[in-house]
Amino acid sequence: MQSIGFIGLGIMGKPMALNLINAGYPLAVYARRAATAEPLLHAGAANYHSPQELAANVDIIITNVQATTDVEEILLGPQGIIHSAKPGTIVIDMSTISAITTQKMAAKLAQKKIAMLDAPVSGGEQGAIAGTLSIMVGGKADILEKARPILAVMGKQIVHIGDHGAGQVAKACNQIIVAETIIAVDEALRLAKASGVDPAKVREALLGGFASSRILEIHGKRMLDQDYKPGFKTGLHHKDMHLALEQAQQVKINLPAAQHAMKCLDQLIKKGHSELDSSAIHLLAED
Amino acid sequence: MQSIGFIGLGIMGKPMALNLINAGYPLAVYARRAATAEPLLHAGAANYHSPQELAANVDIIITNVQATTDVEEILLGPQGIIHSAKPGTIVIDMSTISAITTQKMAAKLAQKKIAMLDAPVSGGEQGAIAGTLSIMVGGKADILEKARPILAVMGKQIVHIGDHGAGQVAKACNQIIVAETIIAVDEALRLAKASGVDPAKVREALLGGFASSRILEIHGKRMLDQDYKPGFKTGLHHKDMHLALEQAQQVKINLPAAQHAMKCLDQLIKKGHSELDSSAIHLLAED
Repeated sequence: MQSIGFIGLGIMGKPMALNLINAGYPLAVYARRAATAEPLLHAGAANYHSPQELAANVDIIITNVQATTDVEEILLGPQGIIHSAKPGTIVIDMSTISAITTQKMAAKLAQKKIAMLDAPVSGGEQGAIAGTLSIMVGGKADILEKARPILAVMGKQIVHIGDHGAGQVAKACNQIIVAETIIAVDEALRLAKASGVDPAKVREALLGGFASSRILEIHGKRMLDQDYKPGFKTGLHHKDMHLALEQAQQVKINLPAAQHAMKCLDQLIKKGHSELDSSAIHLLAED
Repeated sequence: MQSIGFIGLGIMGKPMALNLINAGYPLAVYARRAATAEPLLHAGAANYHSPQELAANVDIIITNVQATTDVEEILLGPQGIIHSAKPGTIVIDMSTISAITTQKMAAKLAQKKIAMLDAPVSGGEQGAIAGTLSIMVGGKADILEKARPILAVMGKQIVHIGDHGAGQVAKACNQIIVAETIIAVDEALRLAKASGVDPAKVREALLGGFASSRILEIHGKRMLDQDYKPGFKTGLHHKDMHLALEQAQQVKINLPAAQHAMKCLDQLIKKGHSELDSSAIHLLAED
């Protein structure tokens, strides 16, 4: 069985790594803060003190961190995996980061015969725990086939979107649709309420027709219940929409509804709500 | 069995009326253009020459026309049903029209002991033919119960939203969400394409996650296939969004994403595409 190194043990990464241990994979971790690694070490993971040290000892490296610069540091930094990973190592970056930087990093790793897949996910903490994430993969098809059994432990739908960066583009598309659909549901429920009509009844009726979506179902319910426990935090959605709009700018297209969604997320953060689920956009109109 | 008068035998009305005949209801029609009534007369419907004449001879009157003013003319005009309908008659207006005008008309009919339900639908021509429409009902609960067996012939989901006009408000909410979700899917697929990523793969991957919706499934497919046969015509969606924004104005709320969607529908009509499915919004960016 391939040995796996896992970097990025946050809300998503921790249950994903635990699922890999439970599936029988030898797992090693590196964490900037020792406390973060604790639950994995208890579950039997080995511990290393830098990405470089980790990379020398595993076949596959999974990264799941927040920022594009974090991934750059882990892969190419002074203590990066590029300095020690064996030829044939596969890096699976499951973070949501820049598609273009992904392409550049994949090219640099390729010079050392290190393969890379971008494999961002959708499905949230629940999906990470249940191993039912949707995984959008960019990179070479033969590398994906080698990594597929590992990805299958974490996700139930694995789609090869295209070459390096394509997974990140798909994730950007995902975040755009989620944000804009949240706004659509927000506007509809506000119109119902302001018109003296029960928004819960409207949601119920609309779930039966063309307006139905997972956002109307799940985030619409959160709006009705005024329960904005994440789910997916506004701060992270804001970060992802920034990536999506950056990508749009790079390829010279205009996405006015995405820009509007970004403005709403901006306002929400300025009001101090970055830790709430991003469906809290529904709160904005109440001022 | 109650006898039914049906006015408005368009793309939706015709199959709905035929389903009622097939369910065994005695059906009569009135049509401004004689040719429109032909298929129903062949199926056994009786024919009358004005709404007033029709109303004198049936227990239930169903209207399914385009404009608010059409409904006003049929119900309250010089040859309107108000002049002849027996006390206890139920008018079921399945058109998509103004919620506020609906409330006013219901009040006027009530003075003559004529009951009214607003019962606009979602589900399109296919749903009308299959009898699987989603029906959003405004009006009194006891009147809905009397009409329910008839509505059940035409729709599979019948939700009592609230009092008079509430069905129309729910329909406005439906059209807002549909329009804004079309734009969300449009922007995402444009970002994929401009980034050199296969939009079909992106759609496939996104259907597994939080971005999934009936619009991504059905209208997303239309965009990929560049097949804009309606479906739901841009011209009608434009009309419905106008109603929704009018309602928003009446209740003094601001719906910026709906306004943006309206602008896109406007542009599409100005380009001569009012007969295409409203997912043809995807064409706009190609100029």
